[in-house]
Amino acid sequence: MQALKERIKIEGRNLGNGILKVDSFINHQVDPVLMDACGRELAHRFENISASKILTAEISGIAPALSTAIHMNLPVVYARKHKPITMPDQVYLTLSPSHTKGRTVELIISPEFLAGGERVLIIDDFLASGATILGLARLAQTAGALIVGVGTLIEKVFEGGRVALANLNVPIESLACIQSMEDGQILFCDDE
Amino acid sequence: MQALKERIKIEGRNLGNGILKVDSFINHQVDPVLMDACGRELAHRFENISASKILTAEISGIAPALSTAIHMNLPVVYARKHKPITMPDQVYLTLSPSHTKGRTVELIISPEFLAGGERVLIIDDFLASGATILGLARLAQTAGALIVGVGTLIEKVFEGGRVALANLNVPIESLACIQSMEDGQILFCDDE
Repeated sequence: MQALKERIKIEGRNLGNGILKVDSFINHQVDPVLMDACGRELAHRFENISASKILTAEISGIAPALSTAIHMNLPVVYARKHKPITMPDQVYLTLSPSHTKGRTVELIISPEFLAGGERVLIIDDFLASGATILGLARLAQTAGALIVGVGTLIEKVFEGGRVALANLNVPIESLACIQSMEDGQILFCDDE
Repeated sequence: MQALKERIKIEGRNLGNGILKVDSFINHQVDPVLMDACGRELAHRFENISASKILTAEISGIAPALSTAIHMNLPVVYARKHKPITMPDQVYLTLSPSHTKGRTVELIISPEFLAGGERVLIIDDFLASGATILGLARLAQTAGALIVGVGTLIEKVFEGGRVALANLNVPIESLACIQSMEDGQILFCDDE
């Protein structure tokens, strides 16, 4: 998606170690016009998969998942990393390594909102190693739900997430694809 | 706002100690149609305050803030509770007591995205004691920004937030107002 790619070119910062800073429009400050356009585009790409629910992980998955959900008219569930007091004692919980946090985080979903037979579209901000998305997929599968698609704003191809997700056997869409971030550069998949 | 109030009547659960569970449409699962309508309504109520930015706190403030931001065409910044590695070392940080967590949480904003002269509209899911919103207001004031309004989805009048925010001297809007939650009831301000 050209608008997202252009924005990354202008405002994205390569902090080294594969870390892309997009805090000015995705992760801390959010540009609502761009985020709404990304949601519309993801909704368009997944219009034929008959999803019944969108699943994401807090925190930075919420904005792209909600904007996609608005355009698909589907409920969105965000996995919590800490169990709130409003959640029942019996939950679906999985552990997921976080590259950017350098530790393992919990992903928790209440069984109230993820049922057997649901057709789940997973949306997140980044497809990097795929660890968070695989964690969400495990939670959904534990609930007896079926994963029917994976959509992200930005894919970092060099971290291998698409390969890690191959066993899900579902369409994977990313709106901006980054081939490499070596030597302080941000090289897109379709550059050159 | 009638649609929100009706939904609370149907799906809201009074868990005691003033805790209202709205996990099925606001806090864990989000109804995008309702959330979009809430955003449109908040945008309408604040259309004349000349806000330049929307400020909220992760996690459950993100959905109402983003949906309001989409309708106002304003950038939204969400305060982080843990400093991500993409954030600079020098930040605005304040401490805020969390009623539902039973402890103090940090609210952190990068100076990159909150500048002097900004006209800030604070949006959150709940107006309860007002502690989180006062924390956000302190961050904004430290940055030299001006608070111009406070909007929330649900106000729990009996927790006194509106009084706590009186010194801000700005319009405060909530879309559903709960008068009391004694004896397992959920009594709205305009009932009877």
